[in-house]
Amino acid sequence: MSVQSVKIVNILEGLLAGNDQAAERNRERFSNAGVLAVNIMSSPGAGKTSLIIKTLAAVRGKARIGVIEGDIAGSIDTEKVIAAGAGDAVQINTGGNCHLEANMVDRALDTLDLAAFDIMIVENVGNLVCPTHWALGEHLRVCILSTAEGHDKPIKYPQMFVKSDAIVLNKIDLIELVDFERDFFYESVRALNPHAPIFEVSCRTGDGIAAWADWLLDQRTQVGSRQ
Amino acid sequence: MSVQSVKIVNILEGLLAGNDQAAERNRERFSNAGVLAVNIMSSPGAGKTSLIIKTLAAVRGKARIGVIEGDIAGSIDTEKVIAAGAGDAVQINTGGNCHLEANMVDRALDTLDLAAFDIMIVENVGNLVCPTHWALGEHLRVCILSTAEGHDKPIKYPQMFVKSDAIVLNKIDLIELVDFERDFFYESVRALNPHAPIFEVSCRTGDGIAAWADWLLDQRTQVGSRQ
Repeated sequence: MSVQSVKIVNILEGLLAGNDQAAERNRERFSNAGVLAVNIMSSPGAGKTSLIIKTLAAVRGKARIGVIEGDIAGSIDTEKVIAAGAGDAVQINTGGNCHLEANMVDRALDTLDLAAFDIMIVENVGNLVCPTHWALGEHLRVCILSTAEGHDKPIKYPQMFVKSDAIVLNKIDLIELVDFERDFFYESVRALNPHAPIFEVSCRTGDGIAAWADWLLDQRTQVGSRQ
Repeated sequence: MSVQSVKIVNILEGLLAGNDQAAERNRERFSNAGVLAVNIMSSPGAGKTSLIIKTLAAVRGKARIGVIEGDIAGSIDTEKVIAAGAGDAVQINTGGNCHLEANMVDRALDTLDLAAFDIMIVENVGNLVCPTHWALGEHLRVCILSTAEGHDKPIKYPQMFVKSDAIVLNKIDLIELVDFERDFFYESVRALNPHAPIFEVSCRTGDGIAAWADWLLDQRTQVGSRQ
């Protein structure tokens, strides 16, 4: 790569080290409060907000969920998740930044009462690349891919799939309409990440949401034993 | 924003200035060869490669098209566009970088004979954020959004829509299945970009491709009078 790119990488390494420290402080804050922190990442429009809304309904009475919404601009998603029953929600506008960083989450946490929650879902900026580099202090990283995006995305955006603790394949109701090759997808994902559970869901029809929500609730019970 | 973020911005400004100079040199190279250069950007899976393949078929015998493919990893798209009849194609692997930069295109051009083409399509990395900052030397910026991504994307990712010379709304065959509010979309885009043509297409069924291809061919005739 060019000199310019090398410069970017060196600068980035320093920033990432600082970010990792801030993320570690966030993680302690979540763990001490007994709150499972989940960083949800995907391309724009894959269904992050829709999955959160369906999850809120599925865990009602079993767990109290708060949401931190990351967007470049606007507060459309925060309004949606509050309307859908999130215990509390806070919007981070990154002002052009293509991913959330740990210090942004730190400031969002200052506005939330962690004792009021069992699970805190952080919805990252829609981007299949940049968020993978920036830890937020989460216990779990979840990647959503929609069938409409195509079965070849794990090959083109490998880091997102390597680093995810769970993968949600959304818009499963469209699978027959978009030439999505399921076998190709599974083989590609398994080559990158042999063990992460893969949940096939449709946030539109509700298919598969119960299995995902049950898994998430089960993860919650393990917060105390996590890093 | 934090001190860290301010540092990023300052560094980025210097890099962007260098990139703009390299982009200007690329643009002169394209213009001197009478080649229309088109930078196609979208989220992962919105249909960049599919649009290129449909465009190749639509302009066959009317214009010679070359393709520069940008991906983080893999060469799946280059293989596809060559199979579909691109005059020549070259793959750039960014090695993790979330967008193409002008110096990458410069090096790709060293491997292509520009005299053999009328139009050079550059397919950017799938990302609705970062590519907007990095000029490549293109004459036209084209943004693709798929209906499956949702009608709210212009509000969440405004810069992409502000900076586009044309907008392609792909997967129009799915519009009734994905709760896409067409009026909301058009109003949002028009608030950001009053004049860019919007093409509704389906790369799956072929609907709308002819109008898009005609517009592209017409733009080609104006290369000489462009910057």
